[in-house]
Amino acid sequence: MSESTPLTGDMPKEDFRRFGHEIVDWIADYFERMETLPVLSQNAPHALTDALPKSAPPEGESFSQIFGDVDNLILPAVTHWNHPNFHGLFSTSTSSVGVFGEMLAAAFDMKAMLWRTSPASTELEPVVLDWLRQMTGLPEDFHGLIYDTASISTLHAIAMARERLNLKIRENGMSGRTDLPLLRVYCSEQTHSSIDKAVILLGLGRKSLVKIPVNERFEMDAEALREAIRDDLSAGHAPLCVVATVGTTSTTSVDPIDRIADICRRNHVFLHVDAAYAGSAAIVPEFQSYFKGWERADSIVMNPHKWLFTPFDLSVLYVRDLDLLKRTFSLVAEYLRVTEEVQNQMDYGIQLGRRFRSLKLWFVMRYFGQEGLIARIREHCRLARLFAGWVDDAADFETLAPVKFALVCFRAVPPGVADPDALNERLMNAVNASGAAYLSHTKLDDRFTLRLSVGSIRVEERHLQKVWDLLNETLKTLL
Amino acid sequence: MSESTPLTGDMPKEDFRRFGHEIVDWIADYFERMETLPVLSQNAPHALTDALPKSAPPEGESFSQIFGDVDNLILPAVTHWNHPNFHGLFSTSTSSVGVFGEMLAAAFDMKAMLWRTSPASTELEPVVLDWLRQMTGLPEDFHGLIYDTASISTLHAIAMARERLNLKIRENGMSGRTDLPLLRVYCSEQTHSSIDKAVILLGLGRKSLVKIPVNERFEMDAEALREAIRDDLSAGHAPLCVVATVGTTSTTSVDPIDRIADICRRNHVFLHVDAAYAGSAAIVPEFQSYFKGWERADSIVMNPHKWLFTPFDLSVLYVRDLDLLKRTFSLVAEYLRVTEEVQNQMDYGIQLGRRFRSLKLWFVMRYFGQEGLIARIREHCRLARLFAGWVDDAADFETLAPVKFALVCFRAVPPGVADPDALNERLMNAVNASGAAYLSHTKLDDRFTLRLSVGSIRVEERHLQKVWDLLNETLKTLL
Repeated sequence: MSESTPLTGDMPKEDFRRFGHEIVDWIADYFERMETLPVLSQNAPHALTDALPKSAPPEGESFSQIFGDVDNLILPAVTHWNHPNFHGLFSTSTSSVGVFGEMLAAAFDMKAMLWRTSPASTELEPVVLDWLRQMTGLPEDFHGLIYDTASISTLHAIAMARERLNLKIRENGMSGRTDLPLLRVYCSEQTHSSIDKAVILLGLGRKSLVKIPVNERFEMDAEALREAIRDDLSAGHAPLCVVATVGTTSTTSVDPIDRIADICRRNHVFLHVDAAYAGSAAIVPEFQSYFKGWERADSIVMNPHKWLFTPFDLSVLYVRDLDLLKRTFSLVAEYLRVTEEVQNQMDYGIQLGRRFRSLKLWFVMRYFGQEGLIARIREHCRLARLFAGWVDDAADFETLAPVKFALVCFRAVPPGVADPDALNERLMNAVNASGAAYLSHTKLDDRFTLRLSVGSIRVEERHLQKVWDLLNETLKTLL
Repeated sequence: MSESTPLTGDMPKEDFRRFGHEIVDWIADYFERMETLPVLSQNAPHALTDALPKSAPPEGESFSQIFGDVDNLILPAVTHWNHPNFHGLFSTSTSSVGVFGEMLAAAFDMKAMLWRTSPASTELEPVVLDWLRQMTGLPEDFHGLIYDTASISTLHAIAMARERLNLKIRENGMSGRTDLPLLRVYCSEQTHSSIDKAVILLGLGRKSLVKIPVNERFEMDAEALREAIRDDLSAGHAPLCVVATVGTTSTTSVDPIDRIADICRRNHVFLHVDAAYAGSAAIVPEFQSYFKGWERADSIVMNPHKWLFTPFDLSVLYVRDLDLLKRTFSLVAEYLRVTEEVQNQMDYGIQLGRRFRSLKLWFVMRYFGQEGLIARIREHCRLARLFAGWVDDAADFETLAPVKFALVCFRAVPPGVADPDALNERLMNAVNASGAAYLSHTKLDDRFTLRLSVGSIRVEERHLQKVWDLLNETLKTLL
């Protein structure tokens, strides 16, 4: 055992100060030299695994030694999500104040379950989420709750829908019964795979999930939805929930929420809106039209950890019927019984304890202010449109979907290429292998499609120029 | 907009350094003056809410101003989980190196879904969890996965059990079917409420949950379990899963795992062991006997965020059949399809993205080493037994459950008191209101029972002496 790690207690306080300062400086340097690092880790698979000891050290090690391995072992294995040329999946990034929020939340280390064990988290969360609700233009009867991920938020939404059916599934379950109709959930072919996972987990099965076709802009065909619900009703099935999306993952297409809300209302079907990515854009006045109708949803998910500069994880579920959410989950064991007339966060979800996540979002909203957040998201959308313009103007490239927010779907189509899918896959792999930028892909109408997402708080026009030049140069070398 | 918050980009780098250092010093001071702060927040309900503005600021605020409000508004609303006299629920606390891990994880802000987007997290996690597996004495065929909370880990375990039944529930669901038997899950009356929530969410219903009685030491009656399964089989029901606990929440009692494992094996029932709290104690050689038989489980949950000095959240699920877990959840959308021959963490659970949680556990295990971790847990258990000895020796108090780990269940029983339940509730409330210590309660055999948990990395014998003196003095004033 080294001198610095006695057999009881924590690190000596002077070491905490010393190494804490070193880590802050390390992070500051990391943010500053980010662009000199390869976006995608250049490690081969198993390289980190092979470099690590097979067992924990019997005696404690000095923190200097451990911290040195962050540089030696961890950093080369990191794909830099904060890099301004991370354009894959959805480009997300943390702000500096977001890191500050996580530092303090880790120090408090509270588990928000009962009000009394965490008044700060229990009370800050609804206030901050009401700020966000106002900024997105949602009406007052939406109540926000923070979960970890959109997958979990959506799981809660569909669980609420199931509870609302009044089929006593909470008490009696679904197995061993002969009185239950087939329950049906509707989403489009472009909906995120988290919906599939939710219906599996909830015991509804993939069969319950009806995938409605999309139009040429990848938007749910509302008429096909109407017909699917009508057919299911005729067949004696029970429509449970529609999941509509503002900003799908492949293309950021926008389902016709207003028409879908009409259909849901007429048929008494629960409407959940997945705005995990694009919800942040609702704070920008000129994008409000994309969200028309979402104010009539029963629940909405949006992820500040995606596009509001808040470190992962922080997903927000807005629900209209908070009592329904409580009825779906609340269970109070004696050791959790208290007498205060307060909300206890444990009553609103599957997780008993919750991290103090609202702190970092509070920091972000205050530090940037409404105007600062709007300006940043607006700028990302401008950069994406600028890039799409370059693509449209180039003879060798084409866009493959409308640019609604800050994602461009495109591909190379140089004349005389027999297999454009293979070419574009090689193009993407070459760009990614360079370390200079990271793009991901999807398939649209069976075509291999490149995706460029703009979302880092550090992104500037020069970064888009860089990746555009790289694409053109790489394409030349491939032809 | 203040000068420090321009309309694009992040905080100026010199501000990040300056405020980052200030926060480190603030946390250092916080840890050092912890004992001068009231354990339970002395705020009245809604005090923080009322002190906060109703809307987000239109323009950004300086971070000095925001940070000032951490002292002014947040700190008074914090219940200090790290306080050495936090003895309520389970006493948990973060170590300094745990905070360091969270700082760096927040800075990397990776979302571990695909190996390529997060090789560091994807590879460090199984290595660190194998270190922990070795320390707990579990055999090599257990594979660990990190989730956020025990509620989610257990949810995954029971979902795996459901999938293993081969009833095509993943594909066909449970609604609208007439061919499914009633599925049954078994746990004891002392099992954590997260099991109830899991069966609700999974669509099994509370009816599916059979609560087996416990003996006078609050341990599951294995014979009653055997009979319950036998009766269910006779009735045509399908036993799905048994949840046995090592270290129940009320009393830290230990179910007879070895006998339960025999019953599960004989009946081909999935065995999940909830060691969320006590699992950490498996690293201490003299406690190994409490865990006898858990090596025959199908899955085990243990929470390093409870008793391994790792900040919340970090729960570990060990499973024997990793392929079964993958079959339960894996779904790959095109935009997530990759060609590397690697594990992708998104395939093993409901959440698509995961935080880089293994980093903080790696820090903890290296900094303290195996010996340091064992010594700390051993010391907590010694302190709990010491306190229980004081209780047993005192005329006015009695213990109400065996002290297996580091929790003491007790109550005041001064002679001549008509209503000991009311007295003990008043005693607990008076101690908690003093701010000097925090105790929680449970009900055992219908008696109001005080719970004193020892688990903070900062706890010393003098803290136990303090709370014991306080209890005795407070009892005198109440009589």
